[in-house]
Amino acid sequence: MNAMSSTSLTAIEKAARLKLMVFDVDGVMTDGSLWFNESGEVLKRFNVLDGHGIKLLQEAGICTAIVSGRCSDAVRHRAAELNIPHVYQGIAEKLSCFDALLLQLGLQRNEAGFMGDDLIDLAILSRCGFSASVLEAPEAVRSRVDWVASRPAGSGAVREVCDFILQAQKLLDTAISTYIGKAL
Amino acid sequence: MNAMSSTSLTAIEKAARLKLMVFDVDGVMTDGSLWFNESGEVLKRFNVLDGHGIKLLQEAGICTAIVSGRCSDAVRHRAAELNIPHVYQGIAEKLSCFDALLLQLGLQRNEAGFMGDDLIDLAILSRCGFSASVLEAPEAVRSRVDWVASRPAGSGAVREVCDFILQAQKLLDTAISTYIGKAL
Amino acid sequence: MNAMSSTSLTAIEKAARLKLMVFDVDGVMTDGSLWFNESGEVLKRFNVLDGHGIKLLQEAGICTAIVSGRCSDAVRHRAAELNIPHVYQGIAEKLSCFDALLLQLGLQRNEAGFMGDDLIDLAILSRCGFSASVLEAPEAVRSRVDWVASRPAGSGAVREVCDFILQAQKLLDTAISTYIGKAL
Amino acid sequence: MNAMSSTSLTAIEKAARLKLMVFDVDGVMTDGSLWFNESGEVLKRFNVLDGHGIKLLQEAGICTAIVSGRCSDAVRHRAAELNIPHVYQGIAEKLSCFDALLLQLGLQRNEAGFMGDDLIDLAILSRCGFSASVLEAPEAVRSRVDWVASRPAGSGAVREVCDFILQAQKLLDTAISTYIGKAL
Repeated sequence: MNAMSSTSLTAIEKAARLKLMVFDVDGVMTDGSLWFNESGEVLKRFNVLDGHGIKLLQEAGICTAIVSGRCSDAVRHRAAELNIPHVYQGIAEKLSCFDALLLQLGLQRNEAGFMGDDLIDLAILSRCGFSASVLEAPEAVRSRVDWVASRPAGSGAVREVCDFILQAQKLLDTAISTYIGKAL
Repeated sequence: MNAMSSTSLTAIEKAARLKLMVFDVDGVMTDGSLWFNESGEVLKRFNVLDGHGIKLLQEAGICTAIVSGRCSDAVRHRAAELNIPHVYQGIAEKLSCFDALLLQLGLQRNEAGFMGDDLIDLAILSRCGFSASVLEAPEAVRSRVDWVASRPAGSGAVREVCDFILQAQKLLDTAISTYIGKAL
Repeated sequence: MNAMSSTSLTAIEKAARLKLMVFDVDGVMTDGSLWFNESGEVLKRFNVLDGHGIKLLQEAGICTAIVSGRCSDAVRHRAAELNIPHVYQGIAEKLSCFDALLLQLGLQRNEAGFMGDDLIDLAILSRCGFSASVLEAPEAVRSRVDWVASRPAGSGAVREVCDFILQAQKLLDTAISTYIGKAL
Repeated sequence: MNAMSSTSLTAIEKAARLKLMVFDVDGVMTDGSLWFNESGEVLKRFNVLDGHGIKLLQEAGICTAIVSGRCSDAVRHRAAELNIPHVYQGIAEKLSCFDALLLQLGLQRNEAGFMGDDLIDLAILSRCGFSASVLEAPEAVRSRVDWVASRPAGSGAVREVCDFILQAQKLLDTAISTYIGKAL
């Protein structure tokens, strides 16, 4: 019943309820590139605008988290820099991880959003309160989510969803004014 | 005769017969970039969606292989991560390598596909059971293959051909349903 | 009053007055990518055409500077190569830094331009003599500046603004003729 | 007089006369990106299709060379891999270097082409037998050359000019047929 009534909400109504936004890494916070050298995977490319979007969410009181199928120290460093409090890497069963985090935070599924890009993310995306994806995702994923970014994955898609959530919660204009400064 | 009748099949009919799909590396699994530092070639950039496409092929019972003209440990690491069982690097005579693999696996040429991007690949592409290439390939290659990806090389072209083969073999919808989960 | 009269000038009139052009780094001199490995941030990607634009400004007698929120040795090396005399990294309060530089150089705000790409840059962008941004910037920034580059950030946006300033000051044709050489 | 008659030739007629093709590196063989880490410049990104184009020129008996304003071991490694016999790096006066190479090879200016992307290349581009550039070059350069690639710099622009020269000299079809093999 909750699931049914949830379906009839618009993306902006769903985003307005969020208290937690969870991000996949590869293909969402990055463009999906996996950089290998002679020792294995070695680099991740993140984006400065995306990072500031995550900071804006946090400043607005919305909790952030990472749930990733892969595992790297690069992600750990970037998450630490952004003060993302919940970082789960090497997760094969993403839905179980997502539900465990909700339990820990005392949140319902419809208070938590997820942004992912592949079939492995469909278990969460088809059950969470606000499902977001990227243009680069397979059609099977894009066609099943509430919202798709127009900026490329790893180059603004995360910032775009953060701005969308802040707008849905009517917090974006305040953030902008603060940065311009009272003196203007 | 086999070659003639083969020509009259559509790309999807050819893809439906495949028991083996073979991939070139540079310009197919990557965007063709060669990263050099003061010691020589040092990095390869692969793609997470492409990798999952190769895994989907394998889960569907289609064998995968790599035949590359260049040679690097980065490819060896990525192939190991994806459990690609047949990896041939530093191959100058790609057609001989391809035919030797078919012999080893007990397959006919029309049961094996190849995805390549340059003139050196034409010997295989003009003889295999399903020839695929990328938008970035020279016109001389694109005009001679059964199928050309619309996603960029190194950023979804491999995933796209994997999805195409799975669809041709009517296995894609099952894969998607499995990932969403029975509970939905 | 100065601010009001300034608003009625065109971008080219504002650029014609500049004696100093200040650049943000991430998202302006780069495409905003942050490259992490297992040790943290590790690479910056600059652009050769952008660098030559900065040299052309300097050859034309226009002072250049960098004001960046982040801090890296890669920026220090690139700035040294380009002989950028004023480089401020790790700056949280960019406007204070900008004003201190003006004081040091004996310049007014309307003689100094700034190119930035995010909310943190709005304090300077809304007060300097010529405000420039990039297509990739959030709409909240793009809509508040005098001029937006059409070339991508990190791949020509800086060169484009340098060429625009040189043209505004009628110095571009002279630079081109010098490079072709008198012998032509 | 030679210069005047040369001007009335089409790009394809000029390319048909070439016995030497010279390439700039940054912004031509690469996309103009300069990768810095804490030690300075560290990486160059070349392209596999571009490299094969240079090999095709050489197989067709056209000599190749590099003249670059910058200097790096990455270029030295890539040039060695491609068997480019003449490699000049760290060249401030490119025209003098170009003319010295012609003298050494016993060639006239109208038998040698150059592909460059910035003002520093205009001295050669306005005097050589076939001048080529890239879409990413400043308009001041693009408007002064015989031919501009439609493929991006560092991702096919070099291959495209090689194919154009081979076609002008009616050698491309032979090359393609050789790669497909006689057995077809």
